[in-house]
Amino acid sequence: MSVAEYLGTKANILRLHSIRATTKAGSGHPTSCMSSAEIVATLFFKEMNIDPLNLDCIDNDEFILSKGHAAPILYAALAEVGVIPKEKIMTLREFASELEGHPVPRLKGVRVGTGSLGQGLATGIGMAYAKKLHGVNHRVYVLLGDGEMAEGSVWEAINFAGRLGLSNLTAITDMNRLGQSGPTMYEWEAEAYAERIAAFNWDVYVCDGHDVKELLEVFSKTKRSKKPSFIVAKTVKGKGVSFLENVDGRHGRPLTKEEQEKAINEITPRIRNIVYQPKNFIKATVPAKISATEYSIETDYKLGEKVATRLAYGKALQKLGRMNKNMVVLDGDVQNSTYTINFFEEFPERSLQCFIAEQNMVSTAVGLQTHGFDVFFSSFACFLTRAYDQIRMAAYSRANLKVTGSHAGISIGEDGPSQMGLEDLGMFRSLMNSIVLYPSDAVSSEKLTCLMANYRGISYLRTTRPATPVIYDNKEELTIGGSKILKRARNDKATIVAAGVTTHEALKAYDKLKQDNITIRIIDCYSVKPLDEATLRKAAKETGHLITVEDHYAEGGLGEAIASLGLQPHILAVRKMPHSGPPEMLMAEQGIDAEGIIKEVKKILG
Amino acid sequence: MSVAEYLGTKANILRLHSIRATTKAGSGHPTSCMSSAEIVATLFFKEMNIDPLNLDCIDNDEFILSKGHAAPILYAALAEVGVIPKEKIMTLREFASELEGHPVPRLKGVRVGTGSLGQGLATGIGMAYAKKLHGVNHRVYVLLGDGEMAEGSVWEAINFAGRLGLSNLTAITDMNRLGQSGPTMYEWEAEAYAERIAAFNWDVYVCDGHDVKELLEVFSKTKRSKKPSFIVAKTVKGKGVSFLENVDGRHGRPLTKEEQEKAINEITPRIRNIVYQPKNFIKATVPAKISATEYSIETDYKLGEKVATRLAYGKALQKLGRMNKNMVVLDGDVQNSTYTINFFEEFPERSLQCFIAEQNMVSTAVGLQTHGFDVFFSSFACFLTRAYDQIRMAAYSRANLKVTGSHAGISIGEDGPSQMGLEDLGMFRSLMNSIVLYPSDAVSSEKLTCLMANYRGISYLRTTRPATPVIYDNKEELTIGGSKILKRARNDKATIVAAGVTTHEALKAYDKLKQDNITIRIIDCYSVKPLDEATLRKAAKETGHLITVEDHYAEGGLGEAIASLGLQPHILAVRKMPHSGPPEMLMAEQGIDAEGIIKEVKKILG
Repeated sequence: MSVAEYLGTKANILRLHSIRATTKAGSGHPTSCMSSAEIVATLFFKEMNIDPLNLDCIDNDEFILSKGHAAPILYAALAEVGVIPKEKIMTLREFASELEGHPVPRLKGVRVGTGSLGQGLATGIGMAYAKKLHGVNHRVYVLLGDGEMAEGSVWEAINFAGRLGLSNLTAITDMNRLGQSGPTMYEWEAEAYAERIAAFNWDVYVCDGHDVKELLEVFSKTKRSKKPSFIVAKTVKGKGVSFLENVDGRHGRPLTKEEQEKAINEITPRIRNIVYQPKNFIKATVPAKISATEYSIETDYKLGEKVATRLAYGKALQKLGRMNKNMVVLDGDVQNSTYTINFFEEFPERSLQCFIAEQNMVSTAVGLQTHGFDVFFSSFACFLTRAYDQIRMAAYSRANLKVTGSHAGISIGEDGPSQMGLEDLGMFRSLMNSIVLYPSDAVSSEKLTCLMANYRGISYLRTTRPATPVIYDNKEELTIGGSKILKRARNDKATIVAAGVTTHEALKAYDKLKQDNITIRIIDCYSVKPLDEATLRKAAKETGHLITVEDHYAEGGLGEAIASLGLQPHILAVRKMPHSGPPEMLMAEQGIDAEGIIKEVKKILG
Repeated sequence: MSVAEYLGTKANILRLHSIRATTKAGSGHPTSCMSSAEIVATLFFKEMNIDPLNLDCIDNDEFILSKGHAAPILYAALAEVGVIPKEKIMTLREFASELEGHPVPRLKGVRVGTGSLGQGLATGIGMAYAKKLHGVNHRVYVLLGDGEMAEGSVWEAINFAGRLGLSNLTAITDMNRLGQSGPTMYEWEAEAYAERIAAFNWDVYVCDGHDVKELLEVFSKTKRSKKPSFIVAKTVKGKGVSFLENVDGRHGRPLTKEEQEKAINEITPRIRNIVYQPKNFIKATVPAKISATEYSIETDYKLGEKVATRLAYGKALQKLGRMNKNMVVLDGDVQNSTYTINFFEEFPERSLQCFIAEQNMVSTAVGLQTHGFDVFFSSFACFLTRAYDQIRMAAYSRANLKVTGSHAGISIGEDGPSQMGLEDLGMFRSLMNSIVLYPSDAVSSEKLTCLMANYRGISYLRTTRPATPVIYDNKEELTIGGSKILKRARNDKATIVAAGVTTHEALKAYDKLKQDNITIRIIDCYSVKPLDEATLRKAAKETGHLITVEDHYAEGGLGEAIASLGLQPHILAVRKMPHSGPPEMLMAEQGIDAEGIIKEVKKILG
């Protein structure tokens, strides 16, 4: 039995698994699996060095199914290769099965979630770059659909990988011509893809994606390349079953039981007795997971000193970078604003300039963290909205990511609304298992950055452009889910719950109200998620009124978070169309400055 | 005086304005203006056909400043061309000035907000396509920075415009080599850009961006092209002032007063007396704004009939399309899931297939609506997160957009979390002046789609995958900010506030609780923003307890919106990691089905 016969047989076995599993599930994308069968078979049963028993180790080749809807064929390959039991295949899409409709890393062999198209290549960059950083000589293979080639994120990744010259990265597009609702942009014009990709400093190969000999030849060439390699594989959707081949309207539709029988009858005769000796996998030994350390940071600020929280964040990064050799920092050409520049200057070898391509930066970070790196990245808070889909998918990838958004709120002033992060608290609160931190001064900014370093999951830090006075002693301890009561007296008439820049407005309001013999409680709610529920409840009970004040839209922000506890806060937030102007005037206009707080307190107290 | 001398002088006048305005403002990006001076001067004073007194009309050429941080030079050009008084220039970035830090359409001559990089070209596609649809023979010019060329959204647009063959679109990249924090990806490698862009079916020209003769020559060529044209203009950041030219670290930093004096002394001698006869602008006469009509829709469903809200949305689109000739619908290869397919089949000439590139689809829609089109577009709700930045900017563009997100919530079932829209309510609620609608049945879906058609601003409709029974009579009237009380009795013990798919769970819970002699009030809260505050308050008061139930993350959703009114709802929402499975089991797991509601009611009532 030739290797080609062996791989062809394996491909047809994968087809059968994919058809049976989706028909049993009653949903799924069998025809998208069928076009990929020879590609997946060639990779899993010949090309890739993977140790099925130690797939968690990083000295394996990697496979990313960017076209995540072809999940059944990935599961079939993992079963055939011995990673999961074959019986599992038929649990596809069941409530209790980790074989979900689209891959998520509940399953060994899946490091990242896919299914939102166009993200796999950028995560592949992260993994390929991670292997280079670790000095591990293995490759990353990313299988894309042709439909997703229209996604800008794919071109960001093509551009970036070409620039980095990532020679251990191979992308394959399964050019099966048909998208969900009709033909793709370039159908079977392989040259349309090839020309475009080649212009970005990739080696590009066009081949028949159902011819395993051609595939083997091309894969062999990619290993000798000094550039990243892209294979445009001409395929047929539904390949292998006559009544499904190249038929529009069969995307995401399983076969009926009758169709399944016909399909099995067509495919089965092509399956030979396997007498070919399958390859011996090389044992993988390098663990991906780095043992967690609890870092702590010492600060050295003077009370009242004016320091921007973003600047303090930069200092903390530098301190953490000295302690943690697995820490990597990414930037999207704003390092001098977010202050990741400190880290970039001290640790260039662990810094990666991703240029102005936020989506790619996020997915690259997701890829990097799969290989045990502690990844921090930052941008203006508003520009993180550019990558909300990637961030959302990072949560389903169970990623460990440390994200900072700077220039939050209208307090940036003159640059205007396009540069104001006014929805970031809502965006990061919406992520499963995320934490959201918001420092008001330099001490808390450094300490919260340290808490992010120690947290496993997605953590978000919101920093501010203007300098704010230091209000915390260097010895102050902060915790995830904590808060600080800055002012408290026995007969407080109300509680102001502030965070970040508004904390200082609350303190100013306190001083002025005191002159009128009104004392108020001030809470710095630096942990927006999780909230310090006990302290907030107590304050509401003891003072009768909570007033939240935030430099963020009302929707999804601090006020709504506290309202959802049933605490009935009066919510001061950004509610008018933002525009350019001096920060103080903008804050006054939105009623989130000291005067706005005083007005609200007096209104409430009557 | 030659035309070159004239334009060179105009360019230097624009430089002086940009320098003076930013120095006075104390912030801004003068060096980014200076590199663009000859490009902008050549366009505004020679190349473009614009009627300064009728710039609102669509029979003008268009200019989009994708590199929005160079706003001062756009304002200077608009002043010099007579659109705004020259005195305005020095109000840059002031609180009361419409000359914001980055352009927004408060100003004539600015149709879209820019400043979040990489979005201008896609809005340019929308405008260029709009002019073709209107049969108006004018061009669209988009000025990009070289830094933003790394954004995937730019490549989505390059890909799409090349595919459309939009010959009336000209892009210029101001290749000044320096980004915010350092050199750009390709610095002055003009060929790196040219090769990449040319591969996408554009005509590409490389020229000296400070040589007006070269620029004129190239612009003249672009007008004869049958493809879109891209000009890679080699420029120098800070051009015109010796101590600023090609100096790193001068991004976004105005000149000091002393520097300003030096700069003025350098530039002034290059300004000649203008004796050249400026061009006569051709009068523009075609208005952009289409008069609003109030549409209404008749439906013909039977009570109890099971119809998916997404299907009803598709029917409503078709009905509206027959009434409204200015209606255009965009799709990103999901028309057979969102049901825009009905419109695509009946009105192919007003349908635009944008393929799988959501960011480009949104910005193209923004461009189209500037020319008076009523634009609907749809995707899976989850994939709209891909374009949150574009959607956010659409709000600052004061855009009139009708957006639908289908397949909302875990009720999609087996496809899993990558395909579940669980953050869309929060995302669309966060937009200034948006409305958010969420139908529970086919009748309300069609009627709410009609309300979107009549609304000016950003409206969002959330539709569901599974079919749900019709609960409304065809005569039922719905309003923005309205709700429907579906069940009410004198001694209701609690109120369930539901929307969309959970409305039906609430009705099931009602029936079961009634068997236990517990009557509850049911409100279908189909208008999530604005809320029907009066009805909700009354229900809270009369029944004592509000329970909200939604197929959405708790953060930013219906429950938090109602909590922010101070109504202390018990919030049932998606709080556990979502995964694949049958919809009913997933809803049960999250406690948002009838059983979950019953349990909560009984818990509250003790």
